[in-house]
Amino acid sequence: MSLDRLIEKIVKTGNPSVVGLDPKIEDIPKYILDNAIAQYGETLEAAGAALFEFNKGLIDAIYDIVPAVKPQCAYYEMYGWQGVKALYDTIAYAKSKGMFVITDGKRNDIGSTMEAYSNAHLGTIKVGSTEFAPFGGDALTVNGYLGSDGIKPLLKACDEKDCGIFVLVKTSNPSSGELQDQKMGDKTLYNVMGDMCEKWGEMLPIGKYGYSAVGAVVGATYPAQLDELRKTLTKTFFLVPGYGAQGGGAADVVGAFDKNGLGAIINSSRGVMYAYKKAGMDERDYAVAARNEAIRMRDDITAHIKNR
Amino acid sequence: MSLDRLIEKIVKTGNPSVVGLDPKIEDIPKYILDNAIAQYGETLEAAGAALFEFNKGLIDAIYDIVPAVKPQCAYYEMYGWQGVKALYDTIAYAKSKGMFVITDGKRNDIGSTMEAYSNAHLGTIKVGSTEFAPFGGDALTVNGYLGSDGIKPLLKACDEKDCGIFVLVKTSNPSSGELQDQKMGDKTLYNVMGDMCEKWGEMLPIGKYGYSAVGAVVGATYPAQLDELRKTLTKTFFLVPGYGAQGGGAADVVGAFDKNGLGAIINSSRGVMYAYKKAGMDERDYAVAARNEAIRMRDDITAHIKNR
Repeated sequence: MSLDRLIEKIVKTGNPSVVGLDPKIEDIPKYILDNAIAQYGETLEAAGAALFEFNKGLIDAIYDIVPAVKPQCAYYEMYGWQGVKALYDTIAYAKSKGMFVITDGKRNDIGSTMEAYSNAHLGTIKVGSTEFAPFGGDALTVNGYLGSDGIKPLLKACDEKDCGIFVLVKTSNPSSGELQDQKMGDKTLYNVMGDMCEKWGEMLPIGKYGYSAVGAVVGATYPAQLDELRKTLTKTFFLVPGYGAQGGGAADVVGAFDKNGLGAIINSSRGVMYAYKKAGMDERDYAVAARNEAIRMRDDITAHIKNR
Repeated sequence: MSLDRLIEKIVKTGNPSVVGLDPKIEDIPKYILDNAIAQYGETLEAAGAALFEFNKGLIDAIYDIVPAVKPQCAYYEMYGWQGVKALYDTIAYAKSKGMFVITDGKRNDIGSTMEAYSNAHLGTIKVGSTEFAPFGGDALTVNGYLGSDGIKPLLKACDEKDCGIFVLVKTSNPSSGELQDQKMGDKTLYNVMGDMCEKWGEMLPIGKYGYSAVGAVVGATYPAQLDELRKTLTKTFFLVPGYGAQGGGAADVVGAFDKNGLGAIINSSRGVMYAYKKAGMDERDYAVAARNEAIRMRDDITAHIKNR
């Protein structure tokens, strides 16, 4: 289908932003880890329990004003399968609160393997006659280096489960240009990848806001490219990382939005998760600080969209 | 460091092949899943237990004649965190039998996130003062679309933990050419990526067989490119998928090897895992069939190397 389910939540909350959930146990409030260690000892179970507890507090604090969360798989895998259980619990909890979940895995592989990833993150599988959604996300970030074979199994899931994908186009990191900015014929690699997103998106019905199920990841740290891509990729919704800790501001991301103020969702992870540190607040108030920062970010971005 | 630990196991076994562990519960012997369901019910725990039981049988059957296994993360994630636990158990078991483990995750992200993936799959993390290797693989496959930022944290792990990485260069799937074969200046994208592998590899000491810690994934299904890349990438060891079920044969992969018969390891997954089906053997003899096929594959490849 399309990304309409996400866009409708953005419209409803009046907030085109997503909070990244990328917790590290060294960075979360110490009392949460201490409690978990008191219960489970110095184990990966304790790490996983602490991640989930921290995320639950964040979700409770923002679910009514933020449309989506984006857990980053790496930070859960870093605590073993016990951490991956916390990823599952986090996704389930965010969905129970009505949030749209973008699983940030940047998965990629050959077709048969992408079918497995698709089942894992967007679809369902059966054990005997009992069906399970192994992770149950609403969208998955993917890497398109392998071409269409690696994308098509996901399109099937998008269609059947009303889900979406976001393909890496122009990433937010400093070295993204080493390959992505190089010319392939008369276009850059990121332009070529962007064009493929449009083409893949057109294989499914376009949603009522004009966007397909195939979004693109375009970094806030490259505002000129964001502007350019918004003009050329008319059916491709953008997931924009790099606001906040990575250096992007509201002025940098305003070009990601269409004339209706839609077309993109801006991610902040560390800026929201650890807002209590920057605000000089007690660690026990981390959720309040996160809500304050989520509101500030929303207002910052929507004001820039309105005033452009 | 380098990939010497892998190469030494290849030399010792006289076998430049790796068995991919990509099990699906529909495809493994039925009695294994039935036993797991009898114990755990129709649950993801049962699926995970069945995967591990199947893998254990394969590892027991091949560990003395095959230097390495390559579990594909997707097939474990497909059964939720319970499946990911089976990935952990499989890696630990293979290592306990002396095998080299290549975790096939094709991970990729910005630097700070790749540090998390690096800790997850190659390194260690601490909970309080207790250290854990969350997954404990010896090498990880990665995707280089984000450039050097996404690779450098892994080089640190390669150096400190004597591990390796394999970067996707020319993949085995039919659509790999859509991007990888396109010209970027006067080179193809896969040539450019290959050159980056050489450069990244040179950032660490080169091993005694002449290869760095940074390998490349080059598909058996593209023999001309395999030949070409072996000639130009002199310090880059190759992981070659696509033998067997994907259509590559020994004649196709012989170009991957250097004059000493080293420089590459050839992967077969389905061909070995499900050899009992092709051989018409009872499903309870799956491990025997896998060993037979592993021996046949070894002899097929080494004969072609000798006779070229």
